[in-house]
Amino acid sequence: MTTALLTDMYELTMVRAARAAGTAERRSVFELFARRLPDGRRYGVVAGVGRALEALERFCFDDEAVDFLLGRGVVDEGTAEWLRGYRFTGDVWGYPEGEVYFPYSPLLVVEGTFAEAVVLETLLLSIYNHDSAIASAASRMTVVAEDRPCIEMGSRRTHERAAVASARAAYVGGFASTSNLEAGRRWGVPTVGTAAHSFTLLHDSERDAFAAQLGALGEDTTLLVDTYDVEAAIRTGVELTGGRLGAVRLDSGDLPLVARRTRELLDSLGATRTKIVVTSDLDEWTIAALAGAPVDGYGVGTSLVTGSGHPTSGFVYKLVARSAGGPDTPLEPVAKKSQDKISVGGRKYALRRLDEQGVAEAEVIGVGRRSEADRNDRQLLVPLVREGEVVGAEPLAAARERHLRSRAELPLDALKMSRGEPAVETIWEGRP
Amino acid sequence: MTTALLTDMYELTMVRAARAAGTAERRSVFELFARRLPDGRRYGVVAGVGRALEALERFCFDDEAVDFLLGRGVVDEGTAEWLRGYRFTGDVWGYPEGEVYFPYSPLLVVEGTFAEAVVLETLLLSIYNHDSAIASAASRMTVVAEDRPCIEMGSRRTHERAAVASARAAYVGGFASTSNLEAGRRWGVPTVGTAAHSFTLLHDSERDAFAAQLGALGEDTTLLVDTYDVEAAIRTGVELTGGRLGAVRLDSGDLPLVARRTRELLDSLGATRTKIVVTSDLDEWTIAALAGAPVDGYGVGTSLVTGSGHPTSGFVYKLVARSAGGPDTPLEPVAKKSQDKISVGGRKYALRRLDEQGVAEAEVIGVGRRSEADRNDRQLLVPLVREGEVVGAEPLAAARERHLRSRAELPLDALKMSRGEPAVETIWEGRP
Repeated sequence: MTTALLTDMYELTMVRAARAAGTAERRSVFELFARRLPDGRRYGVVAGVGRALEALERFCFDDEAVDFLLGRGVVDEGTAEWLRGYRFTGDVWGYPEGEVYFPYSPLLVVEGTFAEAVVLETLLLSIYNHDSAIASAASRMTVVAEDRPCIEMGSRRTHERAAVASARAAYVGGFASTSNLEAGRRWGVPTVGTAAHSFTLLHDSERDAFAAQLGALGEDTTLLVDTYDVEAAIRTGVELTGGRLGAVRLDSGDLPLVARRTRELLDSLGATRTKIVVTSDLDEWTIAALAGAPVDGYGVGTSLVTGSGHPTSGFVYKLVARSAGGPDTPLEPVAKKSQDKISVGGRKYALRRLDEQGVAEAEVIGVGRRSEADRNDRQLLVPLVREGEVVGAEPLAAARERHLRSRAELPLDALKMSRGEPAVETIWEGRP
Repeated sequence: MTTALLTDMYELTMVRAARAAGTAERRSVFELFARRLPDGRRYGVVAGVGRALEALERFCFDDEAVDFLLGRGVVDEGTAEWLRGYRFTGDVWGYPEGEVYFPYSPLLVVEGTFAEAVVLETLLLSIYNHDSAIASAASRMTVVAEDRPCIEMGSRRTHERAAVASARAAYVGGFASTSNLEAGRRWGVPTVGTAAHSFTLLHDSERDAFAAQLGALGEDTTLLVDTYDVEAAIRTGVELTGGRLGAVRLDSGDLPLVARRTRELLDSLGATRTKIVVTSDLDEWTIAALAGAPVDGYGVGTSLVTGSGHPTSGFVYKLVARSAGGPDTPLEPVAKKSQDKISVGGRKYALRRLDEQGVAEAEVIGVGRRSEADRNDRQLLVPLVREGEVVGAEPLAAARERHLRSRAELPLDALKMSRGEPAVETIWEGRP
């Protein structure tokens, strides 16, 4: 399926007008970045890179799309012909997936002709704005969950395709698994799931329901124990498994209290290895509040897939440089006049500056190229696309591991749940 | 493309366990509803009905999906065989798209075997939770915009497929058009778009950029006038068109003030018919604040596609009745024990009660069937699927018109932007 119509109409009317004016082929550099982190957040997490690279490969205009655009009068015949032959032939550098970011981090640098680069704007922003919002929320949750696994189960609370991307982004942000089957099939995210309240209600008794579940899924399954009476349900589950029940799930009530009582009851019944999984509108704060409770895993839904208060990341995609003439004409920085926004034209570099202990202390950004990294500086931009060929694809697990490494470099303050400033400062080098 | 893996894993493990226990074929009734409106909202808008019906028609398990499920050990061979033959054969009633709703309005009533109805849970919830959140936000915006058209332009701020659904839902909620091309192609939503700041920056001067745009798109186009100096840009645009410029777009600054100055300048230059469109992080409150300003249209992005603070609707899908035996066994209401939630088992009816002036005064809900509507009561549940066949499909424009009619029936208080209670009371009939 082509991705090319997942696009704002003005991208194509701009191509049409620039073609007519002879400016469509001017060499251009676009940059994707955020002017600020979501209010109060201390770091962000880059996600969607792998999805964006796939979408780029499928970004072409098939006959149906072109006919639609012609029929609506969006493009003229010449532009239609150009669209039919469209393939991105330029270069893209970017932060690799899972890396943390800060205000003005140049997450993507897209270089090509104006026309071929501008038409990617909407799709790249959609993917980055969504996926990074989810991964950023996920990372906060896995910080406070520490060694206890977090399970993504928010599919039902968001658009059905956004749900798949959310499960993927949550995995990048450190989640262990998801309830979403398509995320398992498409991206290899581990999937989990056992039963809902409806399953208990379907049967003539809770005992019948538990017996049915245990018979089909084995003793290692997780029983949902709060349909009627939690204590009675736990006793039934332990009895039916001779104490070998895998886990119980608590989905209501005062979770710290109920978890403690559940642990005591399980232990008193000899089910000392039965785990306790909690769900029920969890977010990073309620997870933190459960740190002292005997809980073995967290299922998180709504707050994760809605970015825990920040469902989008505020990324923009700006033309920062372009040539005024042919292919050999030098790039010139350009920027909109702006009272309250920093706009720095020109192609950027970006470094994560680390101190001697390996702790991140600054995001260093400058215009141009900077070949030699000082001290422990890490180059943040890696090649993603070279002359139209994707070169930055990698397994999703690599992004997840990178995130955990990158997060571990942050100063301790970065991991506080309270509202704060970006954990490291953005430093502009060589700025006038 | 099949939609069947856009699903939580536990839907399929429940089918597996129920099949083993002989309970999978029990006749069941599921209901989709919200326990409350998003905090402070006075009404909600049902959207996603048409999308859900299409997803239902494409809900089947192809070989690739079944192989994945078998390979992961999600289902056994018998369940896999059942999935291969899966088609929903039951009945669905629901609120038609665009209708307003209140707490406990039974938006969908799904009747079939447990197995065939439970597997639809995640997908139906995803679609309804997302689309209704967007339509509900859109409706508040079009209320305060009154006769001025609202343009949906939030694609870049949300997942690329959610963007298409958002444009569609915004249209149901009264928006006039969208920037999203796929929403135009797929759902017939009117599309609009002209140029971004990058187009002006691409050219050697703003005059060159405007001339290029006017040459390609005609004098009736909308020029973006705030890249450098608003007044100079307006003068250039008017000059280049001999005063016949279609519209100018303002995307920054103190909009009420800038809009007034822009109107005065346009009028003084003789461009009295040139319209003013404003964009720049608008929401229902900033639109309301512009009511007295000379503005002709609003472009809304982020706040719309994130549901203006409520990106999801909180709908749940609950088993409310099931038979304990064969097809002729009567349905029995079932409900989870709950301290703080009203759970009423059984298949519902729903009526909008109108007073003598045609103003909505209550949402009347009861268990069972209620053939005769009293007074001006309107039956809210219509047939959507009969014995597996979709019977409730309709053009999107019908949903938009229904919404505007249904909203017009609400008491005036319903249209206040301030936080409040549901505009009409939910009345339970015949409840013990």
